[in-house]
Order: sequence, then structure tokens, then C-alpha cells
Amino acid sequence: MTIFVIVTYDVNEKRVNKVRKILKKYFTWVQNSVFEGEITYGKLEKCKRELFSVIEKDEDSVYFYEMEYKIVCNKKVLGQEKNYDSIIL
Amino acid sequence: MTIFVIVTYDVNEKRVNKVRKILKKYFTWVQNSVFEGEITYGKLEKCKRELFSVIEKDEDSVYFYEMEYKIVCNKKVLGQEKNYDSIIL
Repeated sequence: MTIFVIVTYDVNEKRVNKVRKILKKYFTWVQNSVFEGEITYGKLEKCKRELFSVIEKDEDSVYFYEMEYKIVCNKKVLGQEKNYDSIIL
Repeated sequence: MTIFVIVTYDVNEKRVNKVRKILKKYFTWVQNSVFEGEITYGKLEKCKRELFSVIEKDEDSVYFYEMEYKIVCNKKVLGQEKNYDSIIL
């Protein structure tokens, strides 16, 4: 069973690429500081453990907005819909 | 009736403060590029109209993740939970 998750982050420049490399394994990179996607609980916990070992807890900030069903979340776009998945880190 | 909305943005430096000033009227500034909060449909549409007049449609990107009930969205924090509401723009 998968859930839908939006991940946003505010991380020091020194660590941001490490965080993005981890998130790219699990989610789609949809905006400069935003990833989203459907994921199993098991993989979500694995992703969090990897991030936890990389971020600086008292400085960096990562939010996981978790929803049981993607359908409950209606995404509207103003301006450009971006996709950075093709960027190699 | 209010809905719960997460707003994320990737906007050119020249326009980002204008965007933030508008969003601060309607939402809570919870991370560098993220606002969130509960809002009526009427005010949400008003907020979007104001943003639409400020952003550059073919360059800037603003996402509205809209959910009927806040309870469907479970927010988890890794590291710091930030709040920029006290910042004067």
C-alpha cells in the first residue's frame, strides 16, 4: 500500500545536494525545494533514516506532508509546472 | 467553510518578496519556500488573483496543494520546525 507525500526542505547549501540525492531515489523533484510522490511506509521510513544521518538537526528543516490517498490532495499550478528529475546531481 | 492548503513557490529573486508579502496575508510562513494554513475558497481565489498579477507566468512557479480537511494531512518534521511569521518584509 502506498501513501502520497509532499516533501519540502530548507537545508544548508553545504548539505542540500546530499539531501536531494536521497530524495531523488524515492520521489519526483517538482520544484526547487519540493519533492512529491507515492511511496510505501517501509520506503518512507528508509528515506527518513537516510536523511536523518545527513542533515544537521539543529539547523536544517525537512517537512513530510503525508496523505493516505493522493485523491485528497488537489494540486493547482500558477505559472510554470517544473520537473527537475532530469538534473544529474 | 475552510480548506487546508500548502503553498510552495520557486520565484525569481526580483519578485520573491512581493509574493511573500501577499502569502503572509493569507497563510503562515513555515519554511523558506513554503506557506500553509486554513482558508476559505473566497480568500484563496483572492490570493491567487493577487499572485497572478505579480508573478512572471513563464518563469515563476507557485503550487497550491489543496485539501478539504486538515486531518487528511499528517505533517512530520525532521530537524527544525521553522516559523518566519515574525519577519517583517
